Amino acid sequence: MRCEIIAIGTELLLGQIVDTNSSWLGQELALAGIDSVHQSKVGDNLERIVGSIRLALGRSDAVILCGGLGPTQDDITREAIAEVMGVSLVRDHEIGEKIRELFTSRGREMTQNNLRQADRPEGASLIPEMPGTAPGLICPINNQVIYAVPGVPHEMRTMVKGTVISDLKHRAGFTSAIRSRVLRTWGRTESGLAEMLADRIRELDQLGTATLAFQASGIEGLKVRITVKAADEESANAVIADEEKRVRHILGDCVFGIDDETMESVVLDLLRERSMRLAVAESVTGGLVGARLAAVPIASEVLTGTMVAYSKDLAAKWFEMPPGPIVSREAVMAMANGVRQTLNAEVGLAVTGVVSPSESSDLPVGTVFFGLAIGDQIDAVSAAMPGDRNRIREYSVINLLNFLRRELLFGDRKQYKK
Amino acid sequence: MRCEIIAIGTELLLGQIVDTNSSWLGQELALAGIDSVHQSKVGDNLERIVGSIRLALGRSDAVILCGGLGPTQDDITREAIAEVMGVSLVRDHEIGEKIRELFTSRGREMTQNNLRQADRPEGASLIPEMPGTAPGLICPINNQVIYAVPGVPHEMRTMVKGTVISDLKHRAGFTSAIRSRVLRTWGRTESGLAEMLADRIRELDQLGTATLAFQASGIEGLKVRITVKAADEESANAVIADEEKRVRHILGDCVFGIDDETMESVVLDLLRERSMRLAVAESVTGGLVGARLAAVPIASEVLTGTMVAYSKDLAAKWFEMPPGPIVSREAVMAMANGVRQTLNAEVGLAVTGVVSPSESSDLPVGTVFFGLAIGDQIDAVSAAMPGDRNRIREYSVINLLNFLRRELLFGDRKQYKK
Repeated sequence: MRCEIIAIGTELLLGQIVDTNSSWLGQELALAGIDSVHQSKVGDNLERIVGSIRLALGRSDAVILCGGLGPTQDDITREAIAEVMGVSLVRDHEIGEKIRELFTSRGREMTQNNLRQADRPEGASLIPEMPGTAPGLICPINNQVIYAVPGVPHEMRTMVKGTVISDLKHRAGFTSAIRSRVLRTWGRTESGLAEMLADRIRELDQLGTATLAFQASGIEGLKVRITVKAADEESANAVIADEEKRVRHILGDCVFGIDDETMESVVLDLLRERSMRLAVAESVTGGLVGARLAAVPIASEVLTGTMVAYSKDLAAKWFEMPPGPIVSREAVMAMANGVRQTLNAEVGLAVTGVVSPSESSDLPVGTVFFGLAIGDQIDAVSAAMPGDRNRIREYSVINLLNFLRRELLFGDRKQYKK
Repeated sequence: MRCEIIAIGTELLLGQIVDTNSSWLGQELALAGIDSVHQSKVGDNLERIVGSIRLALGRSDAVILCGGLGPTQDDITREAIAEVMGVSLVRDHEIGEKIRELFTSRGREMTQNNLRQADRPEGASLIPEMPGTAPGLICPINNQVIYAVPGVPHEMRTMVKGTVISDLKHRAGFTSAIRSRVLRTWGRTESGLAEMLADRIRELDQLGTATLAFQASGIEGLKVRITVKAADEESANAVIADEEKRVRHILGDCVFGIDDETMESVVLDLLRERSMRLAVAESVTGGLVGARLAAVPIASEVLTGTMVAYSKDLAAKWFEMPPGPIVSREAVMAMANGVRQTLNAEVGLAVTGVVSPSESSDLPVGTVFFGLAIGDQIDAVSAAMPGDRNRIREYSVINLLNFLRRELLFGDRKQYKK
């Protein structure tokens, strides 16, 4: 089963919008076991859209068209499909009513133009999910199929997850269930992970029960994706749970979460489980640690606040720093303890460091110190971060949070383990 | 002149990497006046790459191939071009030496594999820029041309800006100079800007001296791009300067910067010009205001620090809030004044608000208050922000900074004007 993706819109060709839809679709098709060997972009031009669809149907079994389903004269995906199918457009009154209701419920006036969205090529059926005003279409053409979904990412995703993928699998005659799980890791290189998992990957090649793949995600660490194909959903879930256990056993504590979990959500969960509140003192990171934590909804239950001392004088005064250099183990310990006391929290976390050569420190650029005050212990570690100003800051944030995570889970402080 | 873009790499089809290169290339081609009506992605498969190139040459004058120039067996762009040109690959010893030197200078061992990168199709010439180990190629084929550039973004961009665009323009017989400038705006809708500029756009349609285009950039506001085509560089620069003056006159103070300027860089520049230091008090934004400011290098000269009170008790205690609701004009004024005093700055900026219905405030979600303490004046304004938790936060940050910008430039406080 081969399925092509055509993203439609002149703004994509002009680079005004980056086409993230095709990447997401490519990922979903791969997970479903459907090959996608061609993906293309085409502008809002009837002749060229028709040509692109015909080309795709000449070499693949199915095509997903993404975009061009809006109400304006530029939106001509419906017309292009009708031409390829050799049929006319018919106005679907049920859809027309649905669009009218959507406008009424939002307190907006529907213009006549909007009814263009109720047109569908004769013989096409509607995708049941309809999160916006643009209906999605399933258009059979002999033993092939064209899907049309809107370019608005969340509308497109709802339709693809709800209908398109399962329809494609049904057409392909797939009866098996495919499941995948992502293990998120921090602190290892891709080749390091590959080496650790080499034996298991070889075993799986023989067994054929699951596959493991690596995916770099920049400052968010490396992902290990486990994919399982089994006779039914229940056995797929069982195999994936077993494989996750094995991979975790091999990789150990560099695995910090699964699927949609982030380093910050994991750390906040760990603190909440322990009924501990967190206060953060930052210098080089300028507030980034607090901002990333605050983006997680449960932050309001855990985070009391952040103190960001960007000027050196302020840092010295604010945190009752000991005499000596302001970027040091001693300084960051004073920050961690000071912020915990001032901001009334059980845990104080601090970061300081050197992001540019103009700093008044002798330490090399990229040197950072992490401090942690918890119970009656105050600790610090130092680390060297790679890259330029912003990469040093970004890496510092995730390494600092990982430092706290590891201390909570594996530190000497047995009393904080769950 | 038509130029297609083909992005090569199986990882692009699988969605492991989002293809931002094609978007960037589309933008550059549009700016250079070259049409790009088809863009596609193809995996690391010789037959399909060859097919894609032939298809592109069947409907366009030029093709840019992006990716597949690395040293491994997967990297087969060179082989595909040779097949389309009907020539063999020859090993270029000069390039071989250059690659060897690059490895030596980085203290790394060169493997025999790396010499594959010194292969070029007979008749192809090298792109002079070579920021990595992958040489770029210019491959003439009758009166058409294939360019091959690496998939690493900065290597690709260096070659395209250095050679590809000017070579394309030369082949197209362009003798004119094209210049563009982006005016960045905040606080107007796209249709609002279009209405304000409608007369000027009509005039320009007649005159033909410049074009104006709008580009939405989400929470970064709307961009108005002025593009000018003139006989030479000097006159292009003169026309663009004149047009910028006219557009600024029409749009007024919603224009906050040009080209790469951001709201935060503009605000920091304004404060530095006035020798004023800034301190920030945040609640709902969780540190985001400080973090965005700190990402600009001159922040260390202007920003003293940030106080983020995420818990309500802390905010009340820390800023000596007046009795009454914690999300209010009075509260945000106390925050702005308190943070300025505590953090030893001339200007205090503060934000508080309601991001989720669970808050203990009667105000609707999205209500925010901005506070500003400067000289002997302490002011506050309230605003309603759209969207979910994170959009409210993001919009609050840029609106808060815009509030400060406008007060510095146009406020009643005449003494702060330059």
